[in-house]
Amino acid sequence: MPNLPLNKPLISIDSSIDGLSNVKLTSPTKLPNATGFLWNRTMVMQVNCRGYVNSQFMQPEPAKYSYAPNMEAKSFIQPEHSYFSHHPGRFFYLKDEDSGEIISLPYEPMRVELDKFSFELGNSDITWSIEHFGLQINIKVNLTKDDLVECWFFSVVNLTDKLRNISIYPYFTVGYMSWMNQSATYNETLNAIVADSVTPYQKVEDYFKNKQLKDQTFFLSDTRPTAWHANQKLFEGEGGLHQPTALQAELLENVEARYEMPVAVMQFQQKLLASERKTYQFLFGPAKDEAEIAIIKEKYLGHKQRCKARESYRDYLNQGKACLSINSDNSSGNKGFDDFFNHWLPRQMFYHGDVNRLSTDPQTRNYIQDNMGMAFIDTKVTRAAYILAVSQQSISGAMPEGVLLHEDATLKYINQVPHADHGVWLPICLTVYLNETADTSILNEMVSFIDSKEQQSFIRHIELALDYLINATDHRGLSLIEQGDWCDPMNMVGYQGKGVSSWLSLATSYALSSWCDLCDEYDINISKQKYDEYRFAAQAINTAVNEHLWHGQWFARGITDEGRVFGTNEDDEGKIFLNPQSWAILSGAASDNQQVAMISAISNQLTTPQGVMMLAPSYTSMVEDIGRVTQKHPGVSENGSVYNHAAIFYIYALYQAGQNNLAFDLLSKMLPSLDNAEVTGQLPIYVPNYYRGAYHQFPKQAGRSSHLFNTGTISWLYRCLVEELCGLKGCVRGLQISPKLPTAIKHLSGQRQFRGAIIDFTIEQASDVTSVEMLLDKQGIESNVLENLQAGQHYQLQVKVPLTGEVSHFNQGKSI
Amino acid sequence: MPNLPLNKPLISIDSSIDGLSNVKLTSPTKLPNATGFLWNRTMVMQVNCRGYVNSQFMQPEPAKYSYAPNMEAKSFIQPEHSYFSHHPGRFFYLKDEDSGEIISLPYEPMRVELDKFSFELGNSDITWSIEHFGLQINIKVNLTKDDLVECWFFSVVNLTDKLRNISIYPYFTVGYMSWMNQSATYNETLNAIVADSVTPYQKVEDYFKNKQLKDQTFFLSDTRPTAWHANQKLFEGEGGLHQPTALQAELLENVEARYEMPVAVMQFQQKLLASERKTYQFLFGPAKDEAEIAIIKEKYLGHKQRCKARESYRDYLNQGKACLSINSDNSSGNKGFDDFFNHWLPRQMFYHGDVNRLSTDPQTRNYIQDNMGMAFIDTKVTRAAYILAVSQQSISGAMPEGVLLHEDATLKYINQVPHADHGVWLPICLTVYLNETADTSILNEMVSFIDSKEQQSFIRHIELALDYLINATDHRGLSLIEQGDWCDPMNMVGYQGKGVSSWLSLATSYALSSWCDLCDEYDINISKQKYDEYRFAAQAINTAVNEHLWHGQWFARGITDEGRVFGTNEDDEGKIFLNPQSWAILSGAASDNQQVAMISAISNQLTTPQGVMMLAPSYTSMVEDIGRVTQKHPGVSENGSVYNHAAIFYIYALYQAGQNNLAFDLLSKMLPSLDNAEVTGQLPIYVPNYYRGAYHQFPKQAGRSSHLFNTGTISWLYRCLVEELCGLKGCVRGLQISPKLPTAIKHLSGQRQFRGAIIDFTIEQASDVTSVEMLLDKQGIESNVLENLQAGQHYQLQVKVPLTGEVSHFNQGKSI
Repeated sequence: MPNLPLNKPLISIDSSIDGLSNVKLTSPTKLPNATGFLWNRTMVMQVNCRGYVNSQFMQPEPAKYSYAPNMEAKSFIQPEHSYFSHHPGRFFYLKDEDSGEIISLPYEPMRVELDKFSFELGNSDITWSIEHFGLQINIKVNLTKDDLVECWFFSVVNLTDKLRNISIYPYFTVGYMSWMNQSATYNETLNAIVADSVTPYQKVEDYFKNKQLKDQTFFLSDTRPTAWHANQKLFEGEGGLHQPTALQAELLENVEARYEMPVAVMQFQQKLLASERKTYQFLFGPAKDEAEIAIIKEKYLGHKQRCKARESYRDYLNQGKACLSINSDNSSGNKGFDDFFNHWLPRQMFYHGDVNRLSTDPQTRNYIQDNMGMAFIDTKVTRAAYILAVSQQSISGAMPEGVLLHEDATLKYINQVPHADHGVWLPICLTVYLNETADTSILNEMVSFIDSKEQQSFIRHIELALDYLINATDHRGLSLIEQGDWCDPMNMVGYQGKGVSSWLSLATSYALSSWCDLCDEYDINISKQKYDEYRFAAQAINTAVNEHLWHGQWFARGITDEGRVFGTNEDDEGKIFLNPQSWAILSGAASDNQQVAMISAISNQLTTPQGVMMLAPSYTSMVEDIGRVTQKHPGVSENGSVYNHAAIFYIYALYQAGQNNLAFDLLSKMLPSLDNAEVTGQLPIYVPNYYRGAYHQFPKQAGRSSHLFNTGTISWLYRCLVEELCGLKGCVRGLQISPKLPTAIKHLSGQRQFRGAIIDFTIEQASDVTSVEMLLDKQGIESNVLENLQAGQHYQLQVKVPLTGEVSHFNQGKSI
Repeated sequence: MPNLPLNKPLISIDSSIDGLSNVKLTSPTKLPNATGFLWNRTMVMQVNCRGYVNSQFMQPEPAKYSYAPNMEAKSFIQPEHSYFSHHPGRFFYLKDEDSGEIISLPYEPMRVELDKFSFELGNSDITWSIEHFGLQINIKVNLTKDDLVECWFFSVVNLTDKLRNISIYPYFTVGYMSWMNQSATYNETLNAIVADSVTPYQKVEDYFKNKQLKDQTFFLSDTRPTAWHANQKLFEGEGGLHQPTALQAELLENVEARYEMPVAVMQFQQKLLASERKTYQFLFGPAKDEAEIAIIKEKYLGHKQRCKARESYRDYLNQGKACLSINSDNSSGNKGFDDFFNHWLPRQMFYHGDVNRLSTDPQTRNYIQDNMGMAFIDTKVTRAAYILAVSQQSISGAMPEGVLLHEDATLKYINQVPHADHGVWLPICLTVYLNETADTSILNEMVSFIDSKEQQSFIRHIELALDYLINATDHRGLSLIEQGDWCDPMNMVGYQGKGVSSWLSLATSYALSSWCDLCDEYDINISKQKYDEYRFAAQAINTAVNEHLWHGQWFARGITDEGRVFGTNEDDEGKIFLNPQSWAILSGAASDNQQVAMISAISNQLTTPQGVMMLAPSYTSMVEDIGRVTQKHPGVSENGSVYNHAAIFYIYALYQAGQNNLAFDLLSKMLPSLDNAEVTGQLPIYVPNYYRGAYHQFPKQAGRSSHLFNTGTISWLYRCLVEELCGLKGCVRGLQISPKLPTAIKHLSGQRQFRGAIIDFTIEQASDVTSVEMLLDKQGIESNVLENLQAGQHYQLQVKVPLTGEVSHFNQGKSI
């Protein structure tokens, strides 16, 4: 961390008052894109360290209340979001009335270097602590449990022994609301700036749809302002955002916006005696009308209301606590390792599962995997989600492209493109739900279809999905890819109806085996004939994949409509893809020798300091029989980034193959940490969907985080932690114990909650054992399964495992 | 013009070298939104005085090559466009290497006050002339006749007697091109910065559609740069656009963009001896690939190429010369009056007619009216357009919502909403074509239908349109409005199928009468029965409108689905609408007494310094039986702005009613001029589609220009000039002379081109005549029609008219 004094690390992790983690960044310029995020079931805000904010709410489709300065396209969230001066944000100008000097907080738009700066991400709030001009400033934001409102708190303390005269000007962007109608003015009754607009539309039917939209943006203050400004253009004047003209005068001129771009600025002239502290509370959000704003004001403005709201929001986020906490002596160098697994990962997992990425039509594969993660937090949610998912299955067995969560929701964007993989996820992910709960009652739930009122058991729904997959194969027995599989933009391999996917074939095989394994484990009542058919089909697929797609050292990615095998050493770009290798391990298609060859190839060709890339080399131009993936920028998203969702599949597969050290090495690379923050550009509070890849092609950009916290990675990562690394995995009889400690972790303790029981555990590598040895409540046990655990009971578990060898027999893909 | 020395007017109009007009603005801050525009058949650019640019090209749908900094929505152009720091533009930073001082030209993004500044709009180019640092800088841009390229020219002269060391940095924004792929680097072979991208899409069919898209943006230079930069974010650094970090170093660091926002910056280090001049040429635009860029380079880079391109572009725009030039002694105060009519109005009219507003599906009403204007420039274009329009008519008689100009074009935006008025325009506008050409051959052209291969004569097409209109009426004989008439957003008056429009009823009547008049004038062969039926229907409609919609002093606007008459004194908002009054005059529905009452009401309630508002008071909230118009911001667009298209209908009607002074007064108010520029905010080079209205409700914003140069106003305004003010109107026998000079114009001379003949004319008010007296080639003539004019012949026409009274018997709506 160059340029910083030793006593002021760039990033640090502390415990907050409530025992949760607090990640602190002390520079607004070193990681300029660093963000934290807050959400509830109706809104999400991503807050940048410099004061920029991306926020949206659901009505039910995503909508804005703080807009860009132009008419922005409605779209899904894009990776590597870029900021610019007029990007939406929440800022505070501060004028020293005695000297006339002006700064802006937290940093933008004036970018004045501040005496002290920190950006602090807590569980349920985001804070800046700043010192400048001999003033100590604290800015804090949290959301509420249920409402559409940002709760801001601003305090300033005079650190000097002189009387100070200052003006504080919150400057909250509203932006270009609408070409039909936009205006803003100060509302004296509400003590708020209220911006009003009409969501643009042209068709009469949309009028009725839009009638309930929240087209107002309010900025409420607990303190009456000395003056105000609601007109973006006139506020800036010729001075621009970095020196707004309106701030040059002693008082703002109370200017409204009339079909002009609104903004919410208030001025608070304030005298501060030595050591005096002054606080302000602001509320910012969307509303339908003034009556709604008045209700928000009543509910959240005021000291008591604020405390209550913070508490209930904290309680809401605390619902996201997951089933495991750990305390390790991880010597791999990631100081925030435990913190991340105990706190930030469950938080991100809860976000995915509780609000489904704030989408009304999550892709089916995302929905099922995200809800697999919820099985570690709140199994009831997973249960309901899986039943909802199959209720939208077609009677043909086809799973839908997306799961509609709202009666008015429709399939949008990528969900309008046919993908072939949606059927594989439920049999695979259901395992976690059953392992966590042993709730076989779900299997007999009777559920109808999207296109039929006929009710069938959950079991039958799974069988239909599997039958559909088995039938969606070509003459070779390989799975047709249609316009994409897990890899959405691999859309032209099979769009003519012939191309096949090795990954999907292997995933189908794995889904079949997973289901058969579940049937075995939980004694599920399916016919012998079906069972045999599935076991046979899985084997047949594995054979077919081996016959047609094994090329020397690894499995190819597929065969195009034209019959071209791709993803082999014969290709100049896209030689090797990660997914087929991972899933060949999972499905059992890869022999031990094949595994050795594959893992070695992956280590040589795909491994980077941030983890494994999903293909290499990245495509640099369109390949017409592969598709859109080849048109993405090299190293970005599916075109050869370190796409963490693919990387975690590989890690999970490595654990199945007993490659514990390699798995842990790659898992460690994936985690955001204090150490890699300056490479990734993000703080260690979430796993992004990718890090830039194309490591050998574009080394300068490699490793950068996408800054997208929506990713299917999360539930698998947590599963790896619980079931593999700690080896505390549910089964029909109880909790099975088989830790997979890497060399780097000699000792691991923690607490596992399982089916209502609480197990405090220690796991250690010990030189005095040659196989796993366990004490439960200090009693030695024979089996590695804890049976008869009682809900509500506390247990003590001590596990000793033999020392892990330093090096496995594979190249471990050391940092290049 | 406060704050400016007397010898430096804010705006002036000069003749350019080629005798055309040159409008000059000497401040970048007084009219910050002032723009000029250049176009050819494939692209248009609107250039702001401060260096911002809005540009798009057709492929065939509108596309960008210099984008906003975020993902902007694709939409039609919005009024009162607002600029912000990162708005697309073309800028030049300039560093004095000796002092280290930096400025930006023409003004943005640094906004340094310059010693001398002028922004000069010529016919075929836009120029800035600047002095600062003892340097004289000239920046010029023009387009080419056919290609997609902006041609920029930059010259700098050392005005001092010292050696100067400077660096010039053209900074051309490329912006956020695509979330799929965007990059930029310097291409040595081309000596260009080339930004590359992939237009985002998700569906496989779009890949094939997008394959031909021009996804590259190039910035070509004739001079090899000392250094370059292609990465927006890194170019700015912490300094921001107002003090880019990359400019602090001696040399730019040759930085590319890799899935980062591209920009095109070059650095030219230059020594300048005393009085030395250095010039640079740059080309900027979209391309499909490098081969295309190489062709553009070959064609346009270099002194000779540049001159040739400028000439051919000038020639292209000169094709827009119209049939009339005037020289008046207009004492109404508008110094640019003649200039505007001779130069800028035909230019704007040519833009509309030649490129159809660069839309692939112009609304039928716009297409027909815009092409009415082309009858004053190039009658062949009008003829072809009208035949194309009826070829897309339905066999039912219904005219289409929009005319598709390209085989891949589709009806978009507002063209997906059913409007009831499209049938009225052709019979009305055809008059101008026939008057200008006497080409009755068009009437017998056989044309098929959009939904039938059956061919029918043009006459029959018109009859079918009229029959359709006559049938689309209710039990009262009033025209059903469906989801809008001329007023697009009046979409809920009749969406349930019952509401009627007074304006559409009157327009139908006027269309019927116009057609019958044409049949009379040009002896068109239609059946007596049809003719009588049309005359009868027109009369019946007038009677019905009078019976149901005359309310005291004026005609109401319609009757809603619920049977509510609106647009009367009983309404609190939307009491009076302009259109029904104008068209009651045109259709003959209004008696003389009614006209007196209406005109008085309009003068009292609708007249403002910028002209007549289209309704008043503006609606301030939704009226559910009127519709979307009531949701627009008060005073904006159809909700009570000075909507010039409606205002020109009224002016045209006033001329028909002999209200020459009032017509001229309102026409003068409509014209942008040196005098009203500080109110409207625009330069006198086009008529905008509106000036802000709601004059009594929101006086502060009233009068502002929309800055939109797309408007149906233009052809009618020119028609008023030719046929009414000058009274030089074609008819079956020849050119009919009946000038309608206002009091303010005592003498008017000029040249009229008519059916190939050239008539130099003078018209003067003379106290010694009591009726119009004329000399043709110094010979007195009896009739007021010049017959037997020979194409290719020059004629001299002298006209004397009696003195015009100072005041008509109506309130003239003096400036409020």
